[in-house]
Amino acid sequence: MIEPFSHSPAAPLFDATFRGKLEQLFRWRRDVRHFRTDAIEPAKVDELLRIAALAPSVGHSQPWRFVKVDDTKRRAEIRANFERCNADALADYANERAKLYATLKLQGLDQAPVHLAVFVDPHKGLGEGLGAKTMPETLAYSVVGAINTLWLAARAEGIGLGWISIINPDELRQTLDVPEHWKLVGYLCLGYPQEQTDMPELHREGWQERIDVSEFIYER
Amino acid sequence: MIEPFSHSPAAPLFDATFRGKLEQLFRWRRDVRHFRTDAIEPAKVDELLRIAALAPSVGHSQPWRFVKVDDTKRRAEIRANFERCNADALADYANERAKLYATLKLQGLDQAPVHLAVFVDPHKGLGEGLGAKTMPETLAYSVVGAINTLWLAARAEGIGLGWISIINPDELRQTLDVPEHWKLVGYLCLGYPQEQTDMPELHREGWQERIDVSEFIYER
Repeated sequence: MIEPFSHSPAAPLFDATFRGKLEQLFRWRRDVRHFRTDAIEPAKVDELLRIAALAPSVGHSQPWRFVKVDDTKRRAEIRANFERCNADALADYANERAKLYATLKLQGLDQAPVHLAVFVDPHKGLGEGLGAKTMPETLAYSVVGAINTLWLAARAEGIGLGWISIINPDELRQTLDVPEHWKLVGYLCLGYPQEQTDMPELHREGWQERIDVSEFIYER
Repeated sequence: MIEPFSHSPAAPLFDATFRGKLEQLFRWRRDVRHFRTDAIEPAKVDELLRIAALAPSVGHSQPWRFVKVDDTKRRAEIRANFERCNADALADYANERAKLYATLKLQGLDQAPVHLAVFVDPHKGLGEGLGAKTMPETLAYSVVGAINTLWLAARAEGIGLGWISIINPDELRQTLDVPEHWKLVGYLCLGYPQEQTDMPELHREGWQERIDVSEFIYER
């Protein structure tokens, strides 16, 4: 089914009030690891996925594959996958950093009512490879765009999202029994957050503060 | 300089009116290849970059590196880089597809007043590698998040963005004389668009239509 697109509607106006609110949305979108266990309406999740698919994609390839993970056994395997990877990551730090790392809560797998594994299908298909010849990684980047869109749309509904990357992607693919050529982009937890804040948790916990963007701008 | 963050302000409310407008923003954000040549105020570009840096990043690593490209000679080299890669890409298609590909306008390098090359610095630094051990590609994904944030913020200002991936990233890095370990994520054109639309150009031109997201949702 093709989503209907209006061909010549009046372009919307985005005014300063909207832009101010949009910046608030960017500021208050957090990576959430502390969830309440309240369910999210399944229709709401589908609505968020519909909006996520409005993201740009290279060659209009729409390479996103969203897997809703509900099975208890699969969730337990994914939890164990995280635990192994997190223990391994901890071993890379020493002294105060290791102590601090061990105190960080880096996922909300046990509380979040909704789990989504998001993959990229890198096979040429839709879009016929347009734009992806010299930079094939743009297919995965398109999926990242969908996740970021989902993240903002969720936050605007008061729903928090946490992106877990401390995971073995090959094991996860096996746990979920998805095609071998799919590549994991992110494992997402969604749920209502226990708190709302505009401060990144890793900043607040003393792991990494925010640096002014001017440090990252160059001229050529 | 550390960006000031308020610690316990009242959380903003995002209502249905805002969410409706946000969806319009997602729908009317386009990959723009047809620009007017009017300049963008330099302060406006810096404002957009400031907002881009509100994007999430793995381990709060902030690995984005924004290069403003103004030099005429460098821009000409980048134009030639695109032309070579585009001719090479065209050779992959045959018959009707090749004819159609040849008619597509895939970049607005000549008209766009602002060019930004966006790189990821994958060296462990800020964030000390947190979250990036099993999936180091999440550093590049963080930069994609910044680009998507910039894209939305620009569109809300009436500024269009076009993302060029038909480019040889190693040659581009040499053209711009940036550190060897940086990796190109995207080459961006910014400017005021010649038209506003909610329909992806590759859909309108008959290259690839939009597929309903339900085709891409799975359950496990």
